[in-house]
Amino acid sequence: MSPEPATALDSGLLSPVRAGVPVEAAVADEAWLQAMLDAEAALARAQAGLGTLPAGAAATITATARAGRFDLRALALAARETANPVVGLVRELGRAVAAADPGAAEYVHRGSTSQDIFDTGAMLVARRALALIRADLDRIARALAALAGTHRDTPMPGRTLGLHAVPTTFGLKAAGWRELVREADGQLAYVEARLPVSLGGAAGTLAGYLEYARLDGATGDPGDCAERLVAAFAAETGLARPLLPWHALRTPLAGLAAALSLTAGALGKLAVDVQSLARTEVGEVAEPAAAGRGSSSAMPHKRNPVLATLIRSAALQVPALAGALTQCLTGEDERSAGAWHAEWALLRECLRLTGGAAHTAAELTGGLTVRPDRMRANLDLTGSQVVTERLAAVLTPPLGRVRARALLTEASGAADRTGTPLAEVLAAVPEIAAHLPGGRLAALLDPAAYTGAAGPLVDRALRATPPPSDPPVRS
Amino acid sequence: MSPEPATALDSGLLSPVRAGVPVEAAVADEAWLQAMLDAEAALARAQAGLGTLPAGAAATITATARAGRFDLRALALAARETANPVVGLVRELGRAVAAADPGAAEYVHRGSTSQDIFDTGAMLVARRALALIRADLDRIARALAALAGTHRDTPMPGRTLGLHAVPTTFGLKAAGWRELVREADGQLAYVEARLPVSLGGAAGTLAGYLEYARLDGATGDPGDCAERLVAAFAAETGLARPLLPWHALRTPLAGLAAALSLTAGALGKLAVDVQSLARTEVGEVAEPAAAGRGSSSAMPHKRNPVLATLIRSAALQVPALAGALTQCLTGEDERSAGAWHAEWALLRECLRLTGGAAHTAAELTGGLTVRPDRMRANLDLTGSQVVTERLAAVLTPPLGRVRARALLTEASGAADRTGTPLAEVLAAVPEIAAHLPGGRLAALLDPAAYTGAAGPLVDRALRATPPPSDPPVRS
Amino acid sequence: MSPEPATALDSGLLSPVRAGVPVEAAVADEAWLQAMLDAEAALARAQAGLGTLPAGAAATITATARAGRFDLRALALAARETANPVVGLVRELGRAVAAADPGAAEYVHRGSTSQDIFDTGAMLVARRALALIRADLDRIARALAALAGTHRDTPMPGRTLGLHAVPTTFGLKAAGWRELVREADGQLAYVEARLPVSLGGAAGTLAGYLEYARLDGATGDPGDCAERLVAAFAAETGLARPLLPWHALRTPLAGLAAALSLTAGALGKLAVDVQSLARTEVGEVAEPAAAGRGSSSAMPHKRNPVLATLIRSAALQVPALAGALTQCLTGEDERSAGAWHAEWALLRECLRLTGGAAHTAAELTGGLTVRPDRMRANLDLTGSQVVTERLAAVLTPPLGRVRARALLTEASGAADRTGTPLAEVLAAVPEIAAHLPGGRLAALLDPAAYTGAAGPLVDRALRATPPPSDPPVRS
Amino acid sequence: MSPEPATALDSGLLSPVRAGVPVEAAVADEAWLQAMLDAEAALARAQAGLGTLPAGAAATITATARAGRFDLRALALAARETANPVVGLVRELGRAVAAADPGAAEYVHRGSTSQDIFDTGAMLVARRALALIRADLDRIARALAALAGTHRDTPMPGRTLGLHAVPTTFGLKAAGWRELVREADGQLAYVEARLPVSLGGAAGTLAGYLEYARLDGATGDPGDCAERLVAAFAAETGLARPLLPWHALRTPLAGLAAALSLTAGALGKLAVDVQSLARTEVGEVAEPAAAGRGSSSAMPHKRNPVLATLIRSAALQVPALAGALTQCLTGEDERSAGAWHAEWALLRECLRLTGGAAHTAAELTGGLTVRPDRMRANLDLTGSQVVTERLAAVLTPPLGRVRARALLTEASGAADRTGTPLAEVLAAVPEIAAHLPGGRLAALLDPAAYTGAAGPLVDRALRATPPPSDPPVRS
Repeated sequence: MSPEPATALDSGLLSPVRAGVPVEAAVADEAWLQAMLDAEAALARAQAGLGTLPAGAAATITATARAGRFDLRALALAARETANPVVGLVRELGRAVAAADPGAAEYVHRGSTSQDIFDTGAMLVARRALALIRADLDRIARALAALAGTHRDTPMPGRTLGLHAVPTTFGLKAAGWRELVREADGQLAYVEARLPVSLGGAAGTLAGYLEYARLDGATGDPGDCAERLVAAFAAETGLARPLLPWHALRTPLAGLAAALSLTAGALGKLAVDVQSLARTEVGEVAEPAAAGRGSSSAMPHKRNPVLATLIRSAALQVPALAGALTQCLTGEDERSAGAWHAEWALLRECLRLTGGAAHTAAELTGGLTVRPDRMRANLDLTGSQVVTERLAAVLTPPLGRVRARALLTEASGAADRTGTPLAEVLAAVPEIAAHLPGGRLAALLDPAAYTGAAGPLVDRALRATPPPSDPPVRS
Repeated sequence: MSPEPATALDSGLLSPVRAGVPVEAAVADEAWLQAMLDAEAALARAQAGLGTLPAGAAATITATARAGRFDLRALALAARETANPVVGLVRELGRAVAAADPGAAEYVHRGSTSQDIFDTGAMLVARRALALIRADLDRIARALAALAGTHRDTPMPGRTLGLHAVPTTFGLKAAGWRELVREADGQLAYVEARLPVSLGGAAGTLAGYLEYARLDGATGDPGDCAERLVAAFAAETGLARPLLPWHALRTPLAGLAAALSLTAGALGKLAVDVQSLARTEVGEVAEPAAAGRGSSSAMPHKRNPVLATLIRSAALQVPALAGALTQCLTGEDERSAGAWHAEWALLRECLRLTGGAAHTAAELTGGLTVRPDRMRANLDLTGSQVVTERLAAVLTPPLGRVRARALLTEASGAADRTGTPLAEVLAAVPEIAAHLPGGRLAALLDPAAYTGAAGPLVDRALRATPPPSDPPVRS
Repeated sequence: MSPEPATALDSGLLSPVRAGVPVEAAVADEAWLQAMLDAEAALARAQAGLGTLPAGAAATITATARAGRFDLRALALAARETANPVVGLVRELGRAVAAADPGAAEYVHRGSTSQDIFDTGAMLVARRALALIRADLDRIARALAALAGTHRDTPMPGRTLGLHAVPTTFGLKAAGWRELVREADGQLAYVEARLPVSLGGAAGTLAGYLEYARLDGATGDPGDCAERLVAAFAAETGLARPLLPWHALRTPLAGLAAALSLTAGALGKLAVDVQSLARTEVGEVAEPAAAGRGSSSAMPHKRNPVLATLIRSAALQVPALAGALTQCLTGEDERSAGAWHAEWALLRECLRLTGGAAHTAAELTGGLTVRPDRMRANLDLTGSQVVTERLAAVLTPPLGRVRARALLTEASGAADRTGTPLAEVLAAVPEIAAHLPGGRLAALLDPAAYTGAAGPLVDRALRATPPPSDPPVRS
Repeated sequence: MSPEPATALDSGLLSPVRAGVPVEAAVADEAWLQAMLDAEAALARAQAGLGTLPAGAAATITATARAGRFDLRALALAARETANPVVGLVRELGRAVAAADPGAAEYVHRGSTSQDIFDTGAMLVARRALALIRADLDRIARALAALAGTHRDTPMPGRTLGLHAVPTTFGLKAAGWRELVREADGQLAYVEARLPVSLGGAAGTLAGYLEYARLDGATGDPGDCAERLVAAFAAETGLARPLLPWHALRTPLAGLAAALSLTAGALGKLAVDVQSLARTEVGEVAEPAAAGRGSSSAMPHKRNPVLATLIRSAALQVPALAGALTQCLTGEDERSAGAWHAEWALLRECLRLTGGAAHTAAELTGGLTVRPDRMRANLDLTGSQVVTERLAAVLTPPLGRVRARALLTEASGAADRTGTPLAEVLAAVPEIAAHLPGGRLAALLDPAAYTGAAGPLVDRALRATPPPSDPPVRS
């Protein structure tokens, strides 16, 4: 092959979230090319299986369909002439097959169309990428289950709108992250099981396939012939059979977009929470340490939360890319002049960024440092304001809802203004002291005693099994 | 109530796609307010059912919880002070209940938090809107099934990249639209069956609910108490039970975003196809006629395809809105300071635009005029170039793939350059004529005879049943 | 007018960021209707000024063109029949004018087309909204200038990736926010000065206008006639003259989208910074206090940063909406069947959310509480790690860059692990102590002494004048 | 350097719109690396120019700063440890400089921070890419000016909502495309002239730079020293001086996003118009012919409009990417943990896709085939319905606006229903015939005679000069 020009290197320099992670290779240009070649080979074998193509030709095509034989860059440049890379690929594949067996070359891409090969290839790439992503989600879910179990009863401040609200536990937080990951995985599994082959021919009627099949000796009515061919192609590729050719019915892409966007968003949620808890003033968690990890070019003391940062960088991109991908549903006619073509890079980037985020999150959750002492210290920061909700409840029966609330709002404000601990302020309010003698008040003010159902909720969440591995397929 | 200022009218002037359609009312401010009141009432009844709240109080709260009693505009303005409308609503509801029964007022919003009420209300609104949207999708699917059946064998040009490719049938096109609608409906059904109640209390631990329950006489461990309360609330609202409180786990919103985006995109595809076929030069379909429909302020002859235009206007907006909604997954802590608040208008607009598009598409598909004569005339426009794929197939065995293709490309170009019908050009090429004597060539050049498996594909698609009405729920 | 149905109320319940702010009224349906009527009236006066329309008719049309006369809801519903509200409006305006003067009714909308009226109206609405937004930006910029001046030398931790980096000053932060606001205002000013009238007629050639003008007695060549009419229309509306009719050249919308997105993003940046600094553990700023402001429905102690929350809720929406608006550039032909129609609600929402964010930010910045004591306390939290960069610099000449950095990284790690203040750790390292005797070290470790050029940068920023009020117009 | 793995090739296979176009190389990883090295070298020279760094060290650093020396892939992989590639680059650059001159290595990255180097490099890359894009826009504008001039008076159907509206000219259409391109170029020029250097140090105060400068002998107050350093760095790089360090003030990115989105959208508009006109049934334009261009893998007759397809594929992506880029404005603190990192790939993709679209559009417009005969034939398709607006005008004085319109609507409908030419229908209506005797009617029905001001508008547009090459800079 020709040496690649420097302009054709995508080292990941601008996208460290996925540089070197497994999904990067799985969706790389070479993988995409191989997947298209796999589609061509599978088509030939499917046709051979139906008796309309010589078995030897199918074998030659299969043996020749190796990405390493082809010049990726030349194919990409040639794609500018035809708006897709398949036309050039078919030409080169034909030449390579002809070199081995001129007769077999007649059977390359027989009856087919660019979109069938490209889309089937894309689904193969997506399937391989989803498997990698789901394996990382599984690692994450396990790590989070362990964290949730360990910290089932570790109290920490619950925070809403940036402020301490009421106590929660780190276990409940970790269980929530796990549930997000589990739901994302469920969606990915649903999509993965339905990734379809594409087999429609030039405009979705399979007319070209049927014409060649007839010439090649097929008998029977067109409907049966089409059914058998699609079934054989699906079997050869391992992909699902679609109800109809989907050249212009882009729900598989929309499904991928939605599931990947959900996954990236779920991981992004985990990342922003880690960032929130890792802030210098908060210090409740820290990223896993590694030599040099998180260092700064300027500041020797810095150990930046780089894993969460990388994950969030992906989560900020994927929903917008996925939105654009979904918009490609609205393409005109039997094949859009542009909407189809816009999908390709968007899909790859959604897969790659989400896969990078998942791999990074597996590393993050697998080694997250949790600091119960800092959580406890932070709970105490506001001198028990974090449990005013509880006091309001306890004072409601004797004082009434409105009065109880007003007294506590006033007391909290006074504590803030004067720097006096809330306990002292409350003890000095006769109306409160009358109902809450000292020991009772102190007990109520303990944040660790006000975590509600956090523990049982963690138990409930951890009992939830993974989604069924084989979700039901609609037909 | 105070008269509404003119600035508070949303007549639909800027969004005719949904002006006056049923979903508009179902997601209007008043409907949203009623849904939040329904949530407050259901909570009281659920607590009453568990014996921790007097039945009479629950009845009074339920009777008082009528949107018409409250000043929407005042509530909206008050929401600026607290960043959500629930704080003010609880205050006003408390006053209204107190006017009927001061004791009952103590039980309003007992143990609750703004987000539980708002989110449960939002899910109730979504459920009502989804029911309307799905009813329209059902109308559309039926209309399309009828069109597909009627035109199972109506040939028309298949078009790719804007040009005639090979023939297809209008039946296959209509069946494809129907499949998109069916898949969208399946996603909506999946989401609809899982719309969850929200019950987490201030930070997702249910601590407030449990504290009041204990004060109000509940016994048993917190986990059981929480389970029973959530189950009772779900039963009262008819919504699903979530695995965990989801204040900060926004998958229900992401699910709605994805399903609505898919639906809008599917309808948008139908709309751009109708536009493509309704163009002056094409004229293969026309929108249903109605007096004044489609008229122009300038041109007396115009009968604009306004229904498709309205649908497409929605399809151009929803994916971007849905993308922004999905991005709100990435909110920090137990409740985000902004990401939660950004969801509300986005969700309403996604529901409203998609619902408007569905209602409009039901009207469009229910009365679409199809013109087989124009389809046939257009098929003949290029003098049979639309079947060169077939000729290539037929000539491949005798001439070889490459040679057959080269001859046909040359002939097509000559036909274009000289204006000579392709049949004549081909007949004058000895290499072709030798293999395709006159009658054979004429038969091969008939576009209507080259529709592949279009008919059987229509049959296959129409056999597909609607999605199960009760999709399996993960737990 | 008919009483409005409850479904037509948009109280702002779901969008408190803009409920009741001035821009809400300026972009409301009634304002939009009035702006379209203003366009009709201006057109009549422009034609009258050129002598092709009776002055009396123009006066009658102008007097009749009052939004209050028309039934907004009926117009919106009628718009479903024609895909825009102008066709119905012209009919109703014609009737109303005819009631006053049947002869004048002949001159309503003379030679015009729906898009000219709608787009000119939209530009009038945008101009009014931009004036309100810019007034709020001016308030914000002044408030920030005051904060920057007051806190020119107030040290605080600079934070990168969530961690203390090196010291900065609050003055520099406020000056940065002001610069963002100033740049946003400059873009808005640029756009505002170029908002164009729309005058193209049915397909952008002005043929209808010219035909009527000729019939009504105009002489001269078509080019001159068109120029005079556009100039007169621009003069009557106060809008700019476009180079060409822009029915299908949507740069004015893209310009609005970009400037509004920048503005919302700039305000969003300010908001997330306020949120970061207002967190319970940080406490360096607080939102302006007001009775009941920021209260929670559950927790008496809460004083939520609601203003920043509202602003951020807008900033999370506007860029996505603006992106969709920009995408409408890609509409086909002389008027797109859908892309034009998708713009309307998107534009209104961008204006309204940005305007709400600006109004809210004016309130936020006008009353922001700044706490230098908390800033100082936070600077000291890490025991001077915040100045390791400085130590690295000072130790580089004697020790070399690499060695200095390695020593400080090691010392910072040791301080973290052991809880020993960094100063003590460093003093115990002979290689460091040799170069930095005690007093020297203590001086270098003072965070307040390491704010670089923060002060002069504030001075530089505050010297920057507002953008020219009358930016140069390209022609 | 190490051989690149296949996974690191970005051949452009999935993005043919930019495969091999000049901007691809200008924004490639290697170009980005070189730009960061250019920033390091420029910083050293700037410091040398101020006398705080030995001239020899600056020369050595400059000589060493060649991208070819470094292993891109290794740098990308290392970036995962620090969340940006600069930390690793500085280490490697330090080693390479040390190999040449150990003393010089002390001065590498002196006082600097990763973001200064990355952002300055990004601006250098953007500048180089914008120059290429603008050169292509200039080619496009010239080609369109020529088309507009040639076809100033070539009549064609104006189309609105997909239907013939009134006549226009191809010249006016081309002039409109040119105006879009001109406006996009004006925005790019504005942004290009303001691309700023980044020089803020660790948290935007320049403290590190000033500390080293002081150690290296600088005198004077910090403000002057900072001003001189920024000025020198700007001079060395040729970039603009920002008012303030902009680590956290991301308006330069938002400006790039807006201008690139506008450019891609403008080119997308041109592309969808070409697609509309190139449809089989319309045939008014054709893409430039080239051997093999536009061929299909299935259909020998196809000559697909591939250039317009590629352009549209970019226009469907860039606005969404640009929206995500703009959203990064809303990053927290002095440097966001994720928002900054999300910008990089988005910016590159916006530059690359827009550049690819521009290069492709230059080829498209430079060779577009225009077919006046097909335009004329299409104008006649509806039997003069395309001029009913004119007839309505002419009949308004004698019959009144409402009556004239009603008669013409009725006549158009009758013509459609019966297939009778409109002229005949009209001649048979006494009320019309009375006012429009035969010859007069025939003249009015000539579409070519009803192009309004199209010609003068073309003249006006072509007189518009390019934007000033040196737009005024705000300060």
